[in-house]
Amino acid sequence: MLIVQKYGGTSVGTLERIENVAARVIETKKSGADVVVVVSAMSGVTNQLVDYASHYTKDPDGVAMDMLLSSGERVTCALLTIALINLGYPAVGLSGRLAGIITDSVHTKARIEAIDTKRMKEELKAGKIIVVAGFQGIDEKGDVTTLGRGGSDLSAVAIAGALDADLCEIYTDVDGVYTTDPRIEPKAKKLDKISYDEMLELASLGAKVLQNRSVELAKKLNVNLVTRSSFNHNEGTLITKEESMEAVLVSGIALDKNQARVTLRGVVDKPGIAAEIFTALAEKNINVDMIIQNVGQDGTTNLGFTIPQNELHVAKECMDKLSASREILYNDEIVKVSVVGVGMKSHTGVASLAFQTLANEGINIQMISTSEIKISMIVDQKYGELAVRALHEAYKLDK
Amino acid sequence: MLIVQKYGGTSVGTLERIENVAARVIETKKSGADVVVVVSAMSGVTNQLVDYASHYTKDPDGVAMDMLLSSGERVTCALLTIALINLGYPAVGLSGRLAGIITDSVHTKARIEAIDTKRMKEELKAGKIIVVAGFQGIDEKGDVTTLGRGGSDLSAVAIAGALDADLCEIYTDVDGVYTTDPRIEPKAKKLDKISYDEMLELASLGAKVLQNRSVELAKKLNVNLVTRSSFNHNEGTLITKEESMEAVLVSGIALDKNQARVTLRGVVDKPGIAAEIFTALAEKNINVDMIIQNVGQDGTTNLGFTIPQNELHVAKECMDKLSASREILYNDEIVKVSVVGVGMKSHTGVASLAFQTLANEGINIQMISTSEIKISMIVDQKYGELAVRALHEAYKLDK
Repeated sequence: MLIVQKYGGTSVGTLERIENVAARVIETKKSGADVVVVVSAMSGVTNQLVDYASHYTKDPDGVAMDMLLSSGERVTCALLTIALINLGYPAVGLSGRLAGIITDSVHTKARIEAIDTKRMKEELKAGKIIVVAGFQGIDEKGDVTTLGRGGSDLSAVAIAGALDADLCEIYTDVDGVYTTDPRIEPKAKKLDKISYDEMLELASLGAKVLQNRSVELAKKLNVNLVTRSSFNHNEGTLITKEESMEAVLVSGIALDKNQARVTLRGVVDKPGIAAEIFTALAEKNINVDMIIQNVGQDGTTNLGFTIPQNELHVAKECMDKLSASREILYNDEIVKVSVVGVGMKSHTGVASLAFQTLANEGINIQMISTSEIKISMIVDQKYGELAVRALHEAYKLDK
Repeated sequence: MLIVQKYGGTSVGTLERIENVAARVIETKKSGADVVVVVSAMSGVTNQLVDYASHYTKDPDGVAMDMLLSSGERVTCALLTIALINLGYPAVGLSGRLAGIITDSVHTKARIEAIDTKRMKEELKAGKIIVVAGFQGIDEKGDVTTLGRGGSDLSAVAIAGALDADLCEIYTDVDGVYTTDPRIEPKAKKLDKISYDEMLELASLGAKVLQNRSVELAKKLNVNLVTRSSFNHNEGTLITKEESMEAVLVSGIALDKNQARVTLRGVVDKPGIAAEIFTALAEKNINVDMIIQNVGQDGTTNLGFTIPQNELHVAKECMDKLSASREILYNDEIVKVSVVGVGMKSHTGVASLAFQTLANEGINIQMISTSEIKISMIVDQKYGELAVRALHEAYKLDK
């Protein structure tokens, strides 16, 4: 039995909390499992380091930045190792390099390419608890790289995959995955299980428990993920393969407030025009989410798409250069409400219930996009919370 | 022309000071020299990390401790690199590992065994300013090690030696080496040059500018050391080979307040007894400084020695176990006053002037020890400053 545990910034936010983490790790070890612990920087540390660098420039050198950023996780890693050894449990702290995490050379947002498990296997064989500094690896050249936002989760999942761990537990300050954000709908319930795909939709739609990259990697490596709180002993939410769970019609409702809509009116309706627009956006690394094209008049068409709000100004620059249309409208006072559930695949009427529910509340739907397991609707910002609560009740998620 | 510069904790104590350091480094680079910069942790950081660890235990695991401690220098290294690049100068930040610093495995006080200069030479060839995280290296196993107190100076000297640098500048918050501590004798003067051996004596005697290990290494590697301030542009003090300077009779007066005296009365006067005592102390890593043995009575002898004050309690434990003598006296209210100068080698009467000077002031000398270039005298603590001032004047160091 091998368990990989990952503790986030708030879970290791103080010296006392690191002691609590040590106690939890030891509990797991005592239960007979081998344990690899992946840690984040103490909460606030990474932001402080970023602030330090921004004293000099807004666009710091990536190689140096990674050397800077990676230091936060090393501190937590060393402290937890010291705490464990002091409690009588042999432990070893490994930086990303020593844990064998090899990445590409895209500094500050590197991708894990391989994990050389030799050192970790040796240490596990020697009976040691391994503590790994998350969020970091090294590239071919031997320089330190960092994995970007949510990087420690990625480290944990990748290590769990490479070591063929039985479980990868992601500890945060929330109990697990909820049917919707409990701050919006107090009747929201914690889910015991959810499929990778549902989690992917929920994560990309604003559920902040896990980053998409980690869930994708877990799915790819077939890692059983559990997200749970380090502040209590409640069972968390297991994220796993779909076939291992009963199909639920709808698992959750997500609200994504970080959305902006761009509408191009009077786009010349000729082949290649859409490609031109979205290639331009892709070159600026703008993540386009929903795309809708309508038939227009006079040989022109209307094209609408949504992007993250904070990428709106870059998108504007892009669009200004293209001048592919007569008129461009920007709207960042919108939100995306989504209904997610694997059960949709085999049930009809799921979407129409959503549309009917919003209509009953007098909420106009501006854009719709659907996937096999998701219905997303763009509505006015001011209706976001109301839409979530109405849908949560309509799909009986509080029962 | 290659210059290695090392900036200590106070010189990089704030983000603004790191900017100042960047400006200084660029000045040097502009003068046509290649530059390797070695940096310490920002002042206070290493102590904070030590405090963190001491939350868990007084005796933290060495391997983890080195991972912890080494992070401070990495942060400074990355920030200075970012600042330099932002000012338009290609630079690369290297951890001890990437700078090729190989040490033994004595964690928290490792010794540098070799420097693999390959990466540094490549980066210099590419025209880059190299910033190295001081105080750290890696051992054979690949684990991070730290070099102990004064470790960043050691890093700088070792790198200067390995790269055959023309100069190794150690920047601190003082202007250089003084004839004595200016806080004791305001007439103290800064020395332009001093020999390695004199510096060694002064360093070991309480002049806090440089650690002995660094001076020893500079002497061994024949590195021209300069100690100067990062807060002004005053010329510092050059520490170099003796033959390259005119012999000065006396270079400086040092006061070491961190001394304690142990006197063993009635030691059985038989072969091997001294060896037994000092082996016991050596096993506890106690640095014995002066040793004096007098003929006693009844086949016994009196043995006196001095040790660092903070090692007195360990020494007491040692002595209690040995019970090699009838009576043991401990005194930590003493100081060591030393007169240092290479000129002593070829001049007579230097020592007698010291003894006469202290006698004139009514100061009793408890112990005397001399070397080729040094006279050290143990006196009552309360006379320390007076002795320094009197000797400073007697040897005309204020002229």
